[in-house]
Amino acid sequence: MHRATLREVAERAGVHPATASRALNAATESMVNATTAARIQKVAKELGYSPNPIARSLKTSRSTSIGLVIPDLTNPLFPPIVRGVEDVLRPAGYNAWIVNTDSQNDIEADAVVSLRQRNVEGFVFATALLDHALLKDLAESSVPVVLVNRSTGIADIPAVTPDDAAGIQMAVQHLVDLGHREIVHLAGPQDTSTGATRRKAFRQALEDQGLTHDADRIHLCETWSEEAGARGMGIMLDSDIPFTGVVAGNDQLALGAFEALTERGLTCPADVSVVGFNDIPFIDKVSPPMTTIRIPHVEIGAEAARMLLEQLDDPTRHPRSVLLPVTLVVRGSTGPANPARTA
Amino acid sequence: MHRATLREVAERAGVHPATASRALNAATESMVNATTAARIQKVAKELGYSPNPIARSLKTSRSTSIGLVIPDLTNPLFPPIVRGVEDVLRPAGYNAWIVNTDSQNDIEADAVVSLRQRNVEGFVFATALLDHALLKDLAESSVPVVLVNRSTGIADIPAVTPDDAAGIQMAVQHLVDLGHREIVHLAGPQDTSTGATRRKAFRQALEDQGLTHDADRIHLCETWSEEAGARGMGIMLDSDIPFTGVVAGNDQLALGAFEALTERGLTCPADVSVVGFNDIPFIDKVSPPMTTIRIPHVEIGAEAARMLLEQLDDPTRHPRSVLLPVTLVVRGSTGPANPARTA
Repeated sequence: MHRATLREVAERAGVHPATASRALNAATESMVNATTAARIQKVAKELGYSPNPIARSLKTSRSTSIGLVIPDLTNPLFPPIVRGVEDVLRPAGYNAWIVNTDSQNDIEADAVVSLRQRNVEGFVFATALLDHALLKDLAESSVPVVLVNRSTGIADIPAVTPDDAAGIQMAVQHLVDLGHREIVHLAGPQDTSTGATRRKAFRQALEDQGLTHDADRIHLCETWSEEAGARGMGIMLDSDIPFTGVVAGNDQLALGAFEALTERGLTCPADVSVVGFNDIPFIDKVSPPMTTIRIPHVEIGAEAARMLLEQLDDPTRHPRSVLLPVTLVVRGSTGPANPARTA
Repeated sequence: MHRATLREVAERAGVHPATASRALNAATESMVNATTAARIQKVAKELGYSPNPIARSLKTSRSTSIGLVIPDLTNPLFPPIVRGVEDVLRPAGYNAWIVNTDSQNDIEADAVVSLRQRNVEGFVFATALLDHALLKDLAESSVPVVLVNRSTGIADIPAVTPDDAAGIQMAVQHLVDLGHREIVHLAGPQDTSTGATRRKAFRQALEDQGLTHDADRIHLCETWSEEAGARGMGIMLDSDIPFTGVVAGNDQLALGAFEALTERGLTCPADVSVVGFNDIPFIDKVSPPMTTIRIPHVEIGAEAARMLLEQLDDPTRHPRSVLLPVTLVVRGSTGPANPARTA
């Protein structure tokens, strides 16, 4: 026997599924206009709707929830992406259960198992690694997954990412336009698409500009943190590589660069210019206000949610990946090259 | 018949519940040492453990998950609180499903209904209002709930909050020590305990210091946002109330005050000193670095999680509320009172 879903009840009653849900629950019924609530309850009875989604999800494997897997909510990059995902899911009648993995594989695996066993319909992952065992497993078991911000090496999983390579080109071009000829890169972890793509794009941009692009112009940071950026910048400043411009893999690494410069009595941008990446909240208010590459955070999340909903509606639709355009935002951390630094 | 829980299997096999969970799931089994996995699977079979928590939660109403209800993840105050909650829950074998309510009652009610129907064992709410219908309902139906950051007017619901009144006293004392005699307050929304408690404490502190404390020295902001702070500060600056010091209800309101001062050609702290509240991430990097009241974000979350676990272990335990101490962090946004402003 077909059991009516909340959406069918809502449709028949002519209300939004969220309203139907409230009307059918004692804890929230009072939030719905009494006449409307009565109509919804009547329809639910007629259709034999069961208000217990656990019982129902056992029968139908549907829960109108998706899992949203985030590496670290204390990184200000992610909350606006979460916002974008929710902005699209909610009007479609979906909840997002957010889990914070702390970039740890075992926490992620536990959370995904737990969510799958509660029949979430799909996942948005912001934690993708280029080589990611759990994502491979999910792809093989045909669980609907969309990646956000980062992509992976696995062909079948769609991703919504910023145009990392274009952003790095803009950052290098901006420094070149300011007269910089000696530019270095603080690269993020190379097991992420953002880290690897931005690093490759940096090398390519230097080559395209006819600038020195030896391997020692790129420092690989172990994490995406301010601390790792400060360490990396310190190592480069203490080396004999001359440079006046820094392209950082993200804004936190760039903040670390600020710190290392200050520690050595150098001024940004008078001595060294620094460009970040992401345009995280508050980065316009730091000192100096950071020149950075703005990625459309909310839109990246929204687009990922749209792609997941499309997959849920039509599982046979061919997977595709989406690059969203980025823009250069010029603020106070970049200025003309200081010739004394490379003379 | 008693059905074995994951914890019982883990205990018998001498492993952490998370390890048992992985060993009992095909998607994650390979992450566990093969000998250990085989032992866990044998124990599970002996105990008749069912690996489907949906089926099990129908029987036992246990899910080893709790709901974590946050008003707005893009407010940097909340991610470190989430971190604290998770730091305590995870070693105890619990997942936190985070929901973001956008401070909207209907979104909150939907999410709570959905989580309850999936048998989460309890909730941590960061969204509490002084008068909060949903919290009343939950209290009446004896659902374990702990409030974090904000408390409510409902007696039975325990809360872990910063010592708001002490923080405001410290802020006023700091300004008085710098020679300020004319101090105003940008108060947050008065339907929250943080907004109301801080406002009352401000009035009391002025009175204790023997300073003017007319009602017009307090501006009530509609939201906790930078925009609301800028509007409020603008209104006070354009009025004929003389002042050299501002105590803001939180850091975002204080950032708005910075903005309104700059717009009017005034300098912080030369013309007006500003004290924030919360010490959110990045607020030490803004210009000028903000003097503020530091609340122990991570510890507030951790303590709330501990109280919830205690409630789950012993539902008869008498509810209690906890105030955590705060500290004044002096940075660049406060300085000596400018006598010209009040002369």
